[in-house]
Amino acid sequence: VNKHDLVKIAKVESALLHGARNYFTTNEFSEVIAPHITKATGACENVETLFEVNFFGKRAYLSQTNQLFLEALLPSLKKVWCIGPSFRAEPVADNRHLVEFPLIEMEFEGNFDELLKNIEGLLISMVKELPALDHVVHIQTPIPRIEYKDAIDVLGLEWGADLKANHEQELIMRNGTIPIFITHFPKKIKFFNMRENDDDPEIVNSADLILPYAGEAVGSAEREHRYDKLVERLQMSPMLKRLEEKGGSIKDFDWYLNIVKNGVNLHSGCGVGFNRVTQWVLAENDIRDCTAFPLNSETLI
Amino acid sequence: VNKHDLVKIAKVESALLHGARNYFTTNEFSEVIAPHITKATGACENVETLFEVNFFGKRAYLSQTNQLFLEALLPSLKKVWCIGPSFRAEPVADNRHLVEFPLIEMEFEGNFDELLKNIEGLLISMVKELPALDHVVHIQTPIPRIEYKDAIDVLGLEWGADLKANHEQELIMRNGTIPIFITHFPKKIKFFNMRENDDDPEIVNSADLILPYAGEAVGSAEREHRYDKLVERLQMSPMLKRLEEKGGSIKDFDWYLNIVKNGVNLHSGCGVGFNRVTQWVLAENDIRDCTAFPLNSETLI
Repeated sequence: VNKHDLVKIAKVESALLHGARNYFTTNEFSEVIAPHITKATGACENVETLFEVNFFGKRAYLSQTNQLFLEALLPSLKKVWCIGPSFRAEPVADNRHLVEFPLIEMEFEGNFDELLKNIEGLLISMVKELPALDHVVHIQTPIPRIEYKDAIDVLGLEWGADLKANHEQELIMRNGTIPIFITHFPKKIKFFNMRENDDDPEIVNSADLILPYAGEAVGSAEREHRYDKLVERLQMSPMLKRLEEKGGSIKDFDWYLNIVKNGVNLHSGCGVGFNRVTQWVLAENDIRDCTAFPLNSETLI
Repeated sequence: VNKHDLVKIAKVESALLHGARNYFTTNEFSEVIAPHITKATGACENVETLFEVNFFGKRAYLSQTNQLFLEALLPSLKKVWCIGPSFRAEPVADNRHLVEFPLIEMEFEGNFDELLKNIEGLLISMVKELPALDHVVHIQTPIPRIEYKDAIDVLGLEWGADLKANHEQELIMRNGTIPIFITHFPKKIKFFNMRENDDDPEIVNSADLILPYAGEAVGSAEREHRYDKLVERLQMSPMLKRLEEKGGSIKDFDWYLNIVKNGVNLHSGCGVGFNRVTQWVLAENDIRDCTAFPLNSETLI
């Protein structure tokens, strides 16, 4: 990163962070502090890429998400958010993945439509603070929504297929090179607590925000808040099986499950991969060119 | 933590974070993102309490400070800050230490007096956002300054002694139970890049902010910006020796030293232990009662 770009990148990052916080302040979300060394509850987004930490003789992980911690505070606080590092042990350094990146997460009592409105509002608030750039950042509101089943039709994929980076960019280009939502993914390829759709139990009320250049920048969903259903989904999840192989246990989720057992309202939330937003705004093809100290398997300093 | 206290704590934390950001925005500091998995440059505050991470076969640490990363950006950005977790492997769970806490750090081109003004301004901006509490938070401005040599006189300690929690609280009580600065510590007990005092090379231009209940909440100093002097101080530091015993090397500092070699202006900075500020504001004797998910050696979830 040369000095000229560094100043530009830093100004863009600082502006986007400022805009994000404006949104949460204006909309009365409480910012909370959650831990980044955790047991399974902070580490369950992508079990294959966990960093392990020797925690005074116990096995712990570097957190990938604080989602369950935020959910635990909802009965008291109703609308919460946090920002902090998310750690992914990606062994290959490429133009799309960092080993550590800031993740902005929000959880609130509300449904799928309110969720998509909050994500859109957050994104617009972030972009609004940007300094003058030498290109225009395009966004259309409401952000267009495409259901997963229609996306795979267009792309010629089978039901259950994950969307790769090239698929995401093809959808983006077919839709005017602006941010889009892909909604209602198959239950079997998504996180255990994403809420089943009432009309079709094979899909969940989830939405990924896909950005030009950067691809998937936000994962979001209504959460399963019915205790029995949640336990069933957790027990059946491939994620838990992989955690058990690593020495984890369903008991690691007890504190979280107990909160749900005590009764929680319908709620929704999301995680925003901050550098992907920066990548979109900077119109860069390589995420490593979008932050001052990019960390991947080859860049430890 | 019961539900009632949780709401109170969360509101206080959210308000303090909001006030901190207001200060940096108003004073035109750029917020930057720095990594939390690092080599020695992120890990040198307290070498004895480093968490190690296996980073794709290389040895890495969980960062305790992002100070050197912030300093590296100063030639371009002039005024920077960041917030993120600081990790300390404290084996004993007590009422004063957490294993992970948010650290607010700032660096700017400026001298010792500007440094103390910035710390005071930050603290006042944080406190200003507080919700109504059932007690009054006292602060006097300018925050009283006591030199280390006078502090040890009062306390009956030898030159070079570290100040323990009881010493800090004794000084606080003798000064009206308000925040105080202790300044100009002996060089031999402080970080290698704190700048020597021009009149007395045995002391550094440093200041610790001491708070009622919480004790040391901020460590700060002018930084050594002369290359030859900085290298000499690093080579002589006990910190480097202990890092070398752990497999580190002075080469780990090359990227940082090269920036200083290229020329940097006089600059200063600090790190604010966020939970200690919360502890003061909440008037609590135990830091574990001051955040929703306190992490120490016994509380991993």
